[in-house]
Amino acid sequence: MSERTETLYREVCRHATETAMLQSVESLLGWDERTKMPPAAAEYRAEQMTLLSGMVHQHWIDRAFGRKIDELAEDLPPDDPSNDQAVTIRRLKRQRDKKIKLPKSLVEELARTAVLGQQGWQQARGDDDFKAFRPLLQKMIELKRQEADALGYAECRYDALLDDYEPEMATAEVAKVLVELREQLVPLVAEIAQSERRPDVSLLKRSFPVDAQEAFARETAAAVGFDFERGRLDVTTHPFCCTVGPNDCRITTRYDQRFFNMALFGTLHEAGHGIYEQGLPGEHHGLPLGEFVSLGIHESQSRLWENLVGRSRSFWEHSYAPAQRRFPEALGDVALDDFYFAINEVRPSLIRVEADEATYNLHILVRFELEQALLDGDLPVADLPGAWNEKFQKYLGIRPESDATGVLQDVHWSAGLFGYFPTYTLGNLYAAQFFAHADNELGGLDEQFAAGQFAPLRDWLREKIYRQGQRHTASELVKVVTGRPLSSGPMLDYLRTKLGPLYGLK
Amino acid sequence: MSERTETLYREVCRHATETAMLQSVESLLGWDERTKMPPAAAEYRAEQMTLLSGMVHQHWIDRAFGRKIDELAEDLPPDDPSNDQAVTIRRLKRQRDKKIKLPKSLVEELARTAVLGQQGWQQARGDDDFKAFRPLLQKMIELKRQEADALGYAECRYDALLDDYEPEMATAEVAKVLVELREQLVPLVAEIAQSERRPDVSLLKRSFPVDAQEAFARETAAAVGFDFERGRLDVTTHPFCCTVGPNDCRITTRYDQRFFNMALFGTLHEAGHGIYEQGLPGEHHGLPLGEFVSLGIHESQSRLWENLVGRSRSFWEHSYAPAQRRFPEALGDVALDDFYFAINEVRPSLIRVEADEATYNLHILVRFELEQALLDGDLPVADLPGAWNEKFQKYLGIRPESDATGVLQDVHWSAGLFGYFPTYTLGNLYAAQFFAHADNELGGLDEQFAAGQFAPLRDWLREKIYRQGQRHTASELVKVVTGRPLSSGPMLDYLRTKLGPLYGLK
Repeated sequence: MSERTETLYREVCRHATETAMLQSVESLLGWDERTKMPPAAAEYRAEQMTLLSGMVHQHWIDRAFGRKIDELAEDLPPDDPSNDQAVTIRRLKRQRDKKIKLPKSLVEELARTAVLGQQGWQQARGDDDFKAFRPLLQKMIELKRQEADALGYAECRYDALLDDYEPEMATAEVAKVLVELREQLVPLVAEIAQSERRPDVSLLKRSFPVDAQEAFARETAAAVGFDFERGRLDVTTHPFCCTVGPNDCRITTRYDQRFFNMALFGTLHEAGHGIYEQGLPGEHHGLPLGEFVSLGIHESQSRLWENLVGRSRSFWEHSYAPAQRRFPEALGDVALDDFYFAINEVRPSLIRVEADEATYNLHILVRFELEQALLDGDLPVADLPGAWNEKFQKYLGIRPESDATGVLQDVHWSAGLFGYFPTYTLGNLYAAQFFAHADNELGGLDEQFAAGQFAPLRDWLREKIYRQGQRHTASELVKVVTGRPLSSGPMLDYLRTKLGPLYGLK
Repeated sequence: MSERTETLYREVCRHATETAMLQSVESLLGWDERTKMPPAAAEYRAEQMTLLSGMVHQHWIDRAFGRKIDELAEDLPPDDPSNDQAVTIRRLKRQRDKKIKLPKSLVEELARTAVLGQQGWQQARGDDDFKAFRPLLQKMIELKRQEADALGYAECRYDALLDDYEPEMATAEVAKVLVELREQLVPLVAEIAQSERRPDVSLLKRSFPVDAQEAFARETAAAVGFDFERGRLDVTTHPFCCTVGPNDCRITTRYDQRFFNMALFGTLHEAGHGIYEQGLPGEHHGLPLGEFVSLGIHESQSRLWENLVGRSRSFWEHSYAPAQRRFPEALGDVALDDFYFAINEVRPSLIRVEADEATYNLHILVRFELEQALLDGDLPVADLPGAWNEKFQKYLGIRPESDATGVLQDVHWSAGLFGYFPTYTLGNLYAAQFFAHADNELGGLDEQFAAGQFAPLRDWLREKIYRQGQRHTASELVKVVTGRPLSSGPMLDYLRTKLGPLYGLK
């Protein structure tokens, strides 16, 4: 690089790092709001967050910053993942170009509508009254269309919105792999539903004292590699993971004394997010090489640690005895096989966040298909509940009895998060593909888990994925790590291999 | 006001309110650092706080803001406490004029050194190793001298630093009243030390389960008026009170299972700070009329609720039965009079934060005199431990056995808080003077306390002090509220009236 290029590059990085630092402060405000803030402080907190997000936005659209990025983008190779500078500038330019395309008035109206939308949604869900929510949703869809038009897109509006969560991935690419998945998964789930074998899940609903659950959740999160020196675990109604700095990743969970799964698998899920965040290269913190790739890749790590590790038999060969010691009354008389079957029950159900790892993806397919139709105008908002219920019947074989347990169950659309849902299933697919490859390369993960050894897998993921930051896009990363493009094959193989013996499938 | 003046005034207020909002975010960063932050996050947190404090500083020294203030200061009456606009501009101008005198580099270096200093101090105190702390303290003193010189002062450098905590009060004014106090207090404490009556304080060191202590502390804080809808209580090694917004005041305490006083009186102390913050007029939040007057006035409220209320006999006539119910094993067989004498023991001791309300002021005198000598250069840092121990011997009649329990016990100097200590004793003096006057005006506070009625006193304080914000300086406020200038008389009267019967003094 020329001296001028180097100077510009340093300046751009300094500015971007400062922007990220302001964002990290905004994250702390958000974490505190959801975990610790006194109830009466909500109004002022909204003002504090508006002030900070305005400052962050100003940093992004700063003209001198933009000019420097544009100049650097011309000096550096356009698409060379081995060139740190090129990757950094390419990603920063992409993010910035998107931000400057959105008119301030639209951003503000989206924010306002999202607040009203979430309030209206909460009310409508409580009242089981989709009609009351309809105008808010209609308004939001119109704004999201405007947003997509302002951002521009190659093939469809959904491309533009998906890009916020899964950068540089086309709707067609996602649709292809999700349709493949659906075609195999619907019959698999139907076959399981017909099986006469059923686990006794009542054992998971015995009494699990909250103190013991908390101790066990912490111990388990630490065992798989969540670093409590660089993070913490709190309680919230809606669990989340939030990063406040390179050595400050905070996860939350919730406890139900009468349900084992919620806290333990919820904690493993968020710990998975946290292990990814904690594994990003700290030396690049605040720059693309120190940031996560996409929501799908993020979710792949939460699902991998929650399901592919946490719901594996080998994991419990190691962890079941400690669990029995923590919960002698609930689990003392339960055989490992019964426990293992219970935590791996597959059963079509109405609520996404309570769904098992097989049917979960069908919940996502319903949403992914409907939100595209809504944006394209193929589906009038008034017809949404009917369309929802039909798809549910078709894919899961059950039908919601109310909109509250159907189309109104998720906050996402009310908050304007169109294009977010598919990242959940992409996460599952990435996870299965990474895991299968790790198992091949490391040889015998099951043996390692059974011996309580999670470091080999974690180190492998850290090197192959976490430490790469945004060097590759999600699609590229899958190819680089596993040698193949994303496919639904590994996920379907995984489900069949695991569920076949449990449910006596052919 | 002319239209132009009104417009300028609105603009100035908007800018100052936004500055205060940024400061409130900085407060949250600080609160989080001390209560919740993962250990490894300290370094990045220091950078986050430096960034925020730099932004706050930029807001203060903004030129347009300064020009508007200067213009307004010429248009408005110079010193009329009944004129809201005049008070606001006068105080803002004073604060801003101080800030523009400080170079940004010095502000940043002070912030950085304070973080490192506190870490080093903690280590040094743990190791009882003053030498390890010496270079950090030396560096801080040099920076504080630079700060004082940059700010300017009338008589001594200490004036400039004291002004940060007790605005517009001269060192000489403080010294006069503190010397008066010392001359009466040293013999009073000596007389008490010779008394043959001694409380049985072992009863306070029985077993007080932490859960019950926490419940009792919360209940008591709420009873005297700390509003938990607008605040919270956490655990820290070094208790403090921190305001994050007009409806967000956070206090902390600590628990010792074998010592009743620490959590209860510590919580009452911080709750007193919190009651002041929660009583400030929210409509002026972020402007001088919505801010506390001085640290001394702040401390007067913590000491008033902790000592003049919380250590009064009438308070315990109401609260002792509930305390016995919370701690049946420890207090079930203890008579109220014995308990009351025990919590009012006066005994020279080494640790300031554990000192009783009489000897406490002698701890402060030691620090007040030493920090002036350090800044003036009359006392080399290397000689500080010796000088500390000598003064201790002279005023309290005892001598620390280690620096950890001597000169290293307080965080203040490591954090650059020179000029802060005297505000503790000023707080005691203000508290006694306010309290005596309230007792006169409200008639029979003791009867009210004995009936569990704290609202009349709280409302009186709210109207006379809290809702005034910075309408008056501390000295003026004392005169406005009590009709007399600050004196050590009410404090000495209070101590003699209370301790005389307990210790059988002449």
